[in-house]
Amino acid sequence: MLTLRHLAIDTVRENVAFLNRRCTRYHVEDFLGLGRVEVRNDGRSLLAVLNIVDDPAIVAPDEIGLSDPAFGQLGLAEGSAVHLVPPTPPESFELVRAKVGGAALTDDQLAAIIRDVTDQRYSKIEIAAFLIACASFMTTAEVLGLTRAMIAAGTRLQWEGLNGVSGGTIADKHCIGGIPGNRTSMIVVPIVAAHGLPIPKTSSRAITSPAGTADTMEVLANVDVPVERMQALVREAKGCLVWGGHVRLSPADDILISVERPLAIDTREQLVASILSKKVAAGSTHLLIDIPVGPSAKIRTASEAVRLRKLFEHVGDRLGLTLEVAITDGSQPVGRGIGPVLEARDVMAVLRNAPAGPADLKERALLLAGRILEFDPAVRGGSGNRRARDLLESGAALAAMEHIIAMQGPPPAVAALGSLVAEVASPADGVVSSLDCYRLARIARLAGAPTDKGAGIDLLRKVGERVRRGEPLYRIHASTNADFTFAQAFAAENSGVAVA
Amino acid sequence: MLTLRHLAIDTVRENVAFLNRRCTRYHVEDFLGLGRVEVRNDGRSLLAVLNIVDDPAIVAPDEIGLSDPAFGQLGLAEGSAVHLVPPTPPESFELVRAKVGGAALTDDQLAAIIRDVTDQRYSKIEIAAFLIACASFMTTAEVLGLTRAMIAAGTRLQWEGLNGVSGGTIADKHCIGGIPGNRTSMIVVPIVAAHGLPIPKTSSRAITSPAGTADTMEVLANVDVPVERMQALVREAKGCLVWGGHVRLSPADDILISVERPLAIDTREQLVASILSKKVAAGSTHLLIDIPVGPSAKIRTASEAVRLRKLFEHVGDRLGLTLEVAITDGSQPVGRGIGPVLEARDVMAVLRNAPAGPADLKERALLLAGRILEFDPAVRGGSGNRRARDLLESGAALAAMEHIIAMQGPPPAVAALGSLVAEVASPADGVVSSLDCYRLARIARLAGAPTDKGAGIDLLRKVGERVRRGEPLYRIHASTNADFTFAQAFAAENSGVAVA
Repeated sequence: MLTLRHLAIDTVRENVAFLNRRCTRYHVEDFLGLGRVEVRNDGRSLLAVLNIVDDPAIVAPDEIGLSDPAFGQLGLAEGSAVHLVPPTPPESFELVRAKVGGAALTDDQLAAIIRDVTDQRYSKIEIAAFLIACASFMTTAEVLGLTRAMIAAGTRLQWEGLNGVSGGTIADKHCIGGIPGNRTSMIVVPIVAAHGLPIPKTSSRAITSPAGTADTMEVLANVDVPVERMQALVREAKGCLVWGGHVRLSPADDILISVERPLAIDTREQLVASILSKKVAAGSTHLLIDIPVGPSAKIRTASEAVRLRKLFEHVGDRLGLTLEVAITDGSQPVGRGIGPVLEARDVMAVLRNAPAGPADLKERALLLAGRILEFDPAVRGGSGNRRARDLLESGAALAAMEHIIAMQGPPPAVAALGSLVAEVASPADGVVSSLDCYRLARIARLAGAPTDKGAGIDLLRKVGERVRRGEPLYRIHASTNADFTFAQAFAAENSGVAVA
Repeated sequence: MLTLRHLAIDTVRENVAFLNRRCTRYHVEDFLGLGRVEVRNDGRSLLAVLNIVDDPAIVAPDEIGLSDPAFGQLGLAEGSAVHLVPPTPPESFELVRAKVGGAALTDDQLAAIIRDVTDQRYSKIEIAAFLIACASFMTTAEVLGLTRAMIAAGTRLQWEGLNGVSGGTIADKHCIGGIPGNRTSMIVVPIVAAHGLPIPKTSSRAITSPAGTADTMEVLANVDVPVERMQALVREAKGCLVWGGHVRLSPADDILISVERPLAIDTREQLVASILSKKVAAGSTHLLIDIPVGPSAKIRTASEAVRLRKLFEHVGDRLGLTLEVAITDGSQPVGRGIGPVLEARDVMAVLRNAPAGPADLKERALLLAGRILEFDPAVRGGSGNRRARDLLESGAALAAMEHIIAMQGPPPAVAALGSLVAEVASPADGVVSSLDCYRLARIARLAGAPTDKGAGIDLLRKVGERVRRGEPLYRIHASTNADFTFAQAFAAENSGVAVA
């Protein structure tokens, strides 16, 4: 028996146990070779990766330390006596081994794997094994099975009693991402809500990009909204733009992504399962997927986009979703701003019908909103875009946005544009021939976005526009000298803008 | 800048950095999403998985803690100022992604991956990705390339000046394992050494089995021998039986195995690359591989064994090894004892030509030794077995073993047979029809083997032997009450012996 100790170490979605090397109750080497231990005390059990500690101040020889998530999951009080036993790997991992060997898994088998993943019985290397086996080879039936399993493993939002224009329709949109400044959701949601179609939009914060919709919306309003409040809000305002972190939708997806992201292995199959599991769990019935295509976007060719579209349609249909896919231009950033404050400025300019508002952001939002509006049986086929334009240009969308902002409450802090400003000049007379989405995003991040909401890039020239040598291509905004210097140095190396 | 702190936590072949959640110099969330950080200070750099700490006693907000292996690898003094930068994943991981996508990798590409693995630039999930991609699909050329890359990434033992019977021949043997009691090495090595053929045998300790050759040899002699001493020893005694842990041969293999083992994903390709890289690095020129086949062995069918044999031959040939494969009976344990002391007893009984010595262990050792002796051009084809028997029955092998034991020195502790003894009785009159290798190994481990050298199982009946109801099938030996009770309970559930 060892005494349980809670270590204030967050091992980020993996259970880790810390054992003193001079532990006298157990043979440390036995467990070490296996890489894991099972921690037990009457009826409760936890599987954890093993780390060895030499410092008795962290863990004494008669103690076992558990990392923060592991301690919480075991659910015993600090000081409890616990046994260690050799780990029994999750039974479902046998199925992963079969998959590695080339087997296609059934719905039940995928469900067993996903249940164990959700219960954190899988270590990160076991999750990686599952992901790579799926990335190597996955049938369409498996994509569907995986999606269903992920939906079943979490909670599912209910939207009964919503008074929309169309009984029971819950609209949603999702962009697969990769294009800086592509903040259409913040225009589409108020347009669709103004029409009366419920559209409860949850968004993520940026992980590797300079701004997610949640980051940008947070310039204007509070986005940290509990589920019940979000439901009340949609009942009242028809739409919302909140951070998705409070909703335990498809928790298995969050765990899989925590391993997928550092590996940067992104397959069509996993993308579809991830997005559709979240959307079905969120209670959406009608979904528009936006796939931008461009040389520096996630999807680089039209044929890739079509293959992805078909997989979305196939799986979406079988899940009972009404699903549409829009393949859009992803050849350059959308709008002028890259970074939360700058993007919020662009969004509000479009909603206010300001003459200086970026036309590309507006037209793209209208295109997407129009297709969503056509989910409403009362909207005549082909007239969705017109209806969207009316709602935007009449100010109805702005009013809806102001209603949503008022309902969500004020932002946690006032965000101002970064006061350190540098202009990046054109090296030649000519026409802008390309903007590198990846490079510009990187510069905006170095400038401090999204953590520093006022940091980013303000594009002064887009593709096809004329520029003279020495004229500015874009401005870098930052708030701290360190970030400012980093971003400028990186831009000096390669601005991300080609002038020909 | 943060202050570097050395944490006495062994994260077992993975670099881990510990950052305080309230770190003010950096945005913790930025790194958290990426899962890793790069720690830098003029010219030195280390890639580490990120854990978050809430307890300032472990890591203060202005500090960064590194786990024991990571701290050693960075090589800076405690208290040094270091930067954190977003991680640059190892460039070679792009090749792993290509492999996941179905590409076959070239020798150079595999070498780049293995170099980064050896330098611990890969996280465990990245290693898992590489292993699973290889397990899904690997060409024979890739197995060869991987083996070569693993050899090149470590040191290679030199055996110049060895005065063997055959100039330059360094013999070796390896059993792929899985059969309890199969301690042929401890008989084969003294026979071959007695013949005058150098056979420097390094062995592992048991990880999941009740005894490895190193554990059993340690009952008789010291096995913890540094490389230089081992070389001197072989020069003098022609053979040795030491633990391989001191020799940094194919360090990439050790790292890969630390991820492979918990995943229990064991492909032919990885097995061949792992074994042959170690053997070539050990300087072996002539190698005998023993593949036991049986229903509870690692290899279950003759056709599987043949496929494995061909892969060994193919890769071995191209590495310039003289390689032979023996496919042997793996249907039941070899000898009578399972556990270090009991197995050492069997080995010494065979070497002493004791009438009670297990005949199956003796005949198997002679078969293997005979094939190795035929590596000597002076030994007539087909007469190796006869020569081996002469060396054993004349006492020459025993003398060689005594010489090796004297050279290696006395064991670290005297190991005695466990004094707690329980007999497991036959449930019926009949003939023993099968012994379950896996089950019996498990019981011996529960009894305390290999950590408790005197624990284990002493088989009183083997397959084909008659037994009457109530007569003992085997004895369980243990030293502590807890182990004794566990092993007995597990044996009572299912003894692992079928009587028909």
